[in-house]
Amino acid sequence: MTPPRSLLRYITSMSSKQPFVARWGILGCGWISSEFTKDIGRPMASRNVTDVSHAIAAVGSRSLSKAEDFISKYCPNGAAGQQDGLVDFKPKAYGSYKGVVEDPNVNIVYVGSMNIAHYEDAKLALEAGKNCLLEKPATLNAAEWKHLVSIAKKNDVFLMEAVWTRFNPVMLAIQKAIHEDNLIGEIRCMYSDLAMDAYKKRPNTNRLFAAELGGGSLLDLGPYPLVWTMMILYRHPMNQLTPPDKVGSTMLQHHTGVDLATSITLTFPKLNAVSFCTTNLLSNVQKYQNTRIVGSKGEILVHGLTSRPQKYTIRRLLNPEIEDGDYEDETIDMTFDGFGLYWEADAVARCLRDGLKECPSMPHAETTMTMEIFDKVRKEGGYEFLPGLEKVKA
Amino acid sequence: MTPPRSLLRYITSMSSKQPFVARWGILGCGWISSEFTKDIGRPMASRNVTDVSHAIAAVGSRSLSKAEDFISKYCPNGAAGQQDGLVDFKPKAYGSYKGVVEDPNVNIVYVGSMNIAHYEDAKLALEAGKNCLLEKPATLNAAEWKHLVSIAKKNDVFLMEAVWTRFNPVMLAIQKAIHEDNLIGEIRCMYSDLAMDAYKKRPNTNRLFAAELGGGSLLDLGPYPLVWTMMILYRHPMNQLTPPDKVGSTMLQHHTGVDLATSITLTFPKLNAVSFCTTNLLSNVQKYQNTRIVGSKGEILVHGLTSRPQKYTIRRLLNPEIEDGDYEDETIDMTFDGFGLYWEADAVARCLRDGLKECPSMPHAETTMTMEIFDKVRKEGGYEFLPGLEKVKA
Repeated sequence: MTPPRSLLRYITSMSSKQPFVARWGILGCGWISSEFTKDIGRPMASRNVTDVSHAIAAVGSRSLSKAEDFISKYCPNGAAGQQDGLVDFKPKAYGSYKGVVEDPNVNIVYVGSMNIAHYEDAKLALEAGKNCLLEKPATLNAAEWKHLVSIAKKNDVFLMEAVWTRFNPVMLAIQKAIHEDNLIGEIRCMYSDLAMDAYKKRPNTNRLFAAELGGGSLLDLGPYPLVWTMMILYRHPMNQLTPPDKVGSTMLQHHTGVDLATSITLTFPKLNAVSFCTTNLLSNVQKYQNTRIVGSKGEILVHGLTSRPQKYTIRRLLNPEIEDGDYEDETIDMTFDGFGLYWEADAVARCLRDGLKECPSMPHAETTMTMEIFDKVRKEGGYEFLPGLEKVKA
Repeated sequence: MTPPRSLLRYITSMSSKQPFVARWGILGCGWISSEFTKDIGRPMASRNVTDVSHAIAAVGSRSLSKAEDFISKYCPNGAAGQQDGLVDFKPKAYGSYKGVVEDPNVNIVYVGSMNIAHYEDAKLALEAGKNCLLEKPATLNAAEWKHLVSIAKKNDVFLMEAVWTRFNPVMLAIQKAIHEDNLIGEIRCMYSDLAMDAYKKRPNTNRLFAAELGGGSLLDLGPYPLVWTMMILYRHPMNQLTPPDKVGSTMLQHHTGVDLATSITLTFPKLNAVSFCTTNLLSNVQKYQNTRIVGSKGEILVHGLTSRPQKYTIRRLLNPEIEDGDYEDETIDMTFDGFGLYWEADAVARCLRDGLKECPSMPHAETTMTMEIFDKVRKEGGYEFLPGLEKVKA
């Protein structure tokens, strides 16, 4: 049977349609930039993505040779879009950030520099009229972030905090299971932890412990337990985007002035639910499970790092009516290659393709809320940034 | 070979020496009293105890028939000491608490009544000149407790809060492993949770949810995560009995006014350690592990309920010098019969035998500290007792 002419025309138009290419300018040649660059270099087919692709247009560092080394090490042939011949430029190295944000091949700047430089680096990109994906924590405080948002709006460019866990398929599957499929009933409470085995294993000059680098567990690891809270509780349909009623916290401080350990507990009265978030630089992560979401019909155990899980268990109560009943476990394995930053990059590319200025999955307002929570937690914990670190203060 | 005469004399004197018998008067015929009574009725030989024993001298309830039913159900033949013929009285039922505290056979009163009655019931016993073991939470607030201590001192009688988990062999083995054997190196942080699957499964008139009964998760379940903190961190030799520097908390409140969920985070700067304690009435307990203590050389995972564990895993880091190294697990099973309240009862009997007025393992000061922590947490969380519940206020 011959397909109708209209369908043939449609198939031809689809297959001939080129994917939209996000042309990245990378600011900062540290570890997270390298993971991001390696991830967007992976073949798009490996994750069945055909509508968007990625290119590395420019890489910038304070030193040209560092940028050159970065390219030869992580993207000698650019990203997936370059390997697939969708663009004809090669990654260009710059010894300054200014060069990157002014490179005409760049349509989005990825800011992967140190936390304390985020505000100024993102500002540089936005003021050059470039779209910007800004590593988490977006800024040091809410005031810096709000200022960036105002610049982005003025220049009509895209801005997003790079909370990549929001785009992780395990996160999305769990969110759907809870918000749409009601798989564990009414949400009651969740526990989420992210820790790092850094204490006495890294020097006090390390970015994690150095006050002059805005170190500590809260800003570096805290975003991850919090993103689970935001995605599962704050974004729960019944919560109707109501901010947490109480945000309580406690800090254990290091002698350098940063936090070694912090707890944040958030209550959501509309759900009658509570989230216990913990983070520290004192201990290793749990071997198996660091996030647990408990509902009236069962619970979901997220395996592995809170930042990039690849597997989860649905533990269904056989009889949800009785106390302490028996369970039935089902483990779902969504193992993927690489660091998992490409899910976020693909989402950003789609936003750019569609002309969006903020991402519906990671809107400006939710970064504002997160930064305001961090401001409050630092204030309660007695963690004050060294003078001059914050470029904008409330 | 004939043993020397001196040794024979010694053996004869040991075997002929009668164990000291704690002669209990039970106030309150609820669930915890029944578990206590059943536990002290178990044969002393089943836990290899020969130096002390127990008898049930009296049981009191507001109604005589309830006390009679309790005896016929849980201790028709008294406790172990009666079954072994160490005392010749049988348990006597009273339709009032006054009868129990005045019964001449009673040398210690066990207060297992409702939380809101603890203060008055213990006061009755102490003023009658009787020793007293008072179920946890000792009282509703620190002021009530301090008043009880002053009465106990005036009457020169023994008083102890019944934090039975302190006498649990798993707790003691872990405390030794950490404090004496340095099995997991420097303590960095601990997580401890106790939850109950009661929400929407019990009516709001249940003691857990009723404001008029001083309900909520904090007072009912909170003592258990806290006792792990006290035993492992507060009592750590390097902490030198220094109270926690920060005690931060957050509460999710129920519409009845009690807390559905509470978190308490305590910092111990001398150890550079932090404890994250959580409790709620919203969710079931974790299937496997509810308390985790992390040190520089490994961690200890406590299996089962935080209140009465029977098993634990020592997870040793193969190379404690590197970040995120591999582990080796060793699980130690200390399974015991019954509810495990007899470990505490034996310790109390030894205190009485030795003429102590407070127990070194559960001294007055540590109950004071616990009650002051609860007072602070309630204040921060907005949990106020109904007028009249507190018999003594600060």
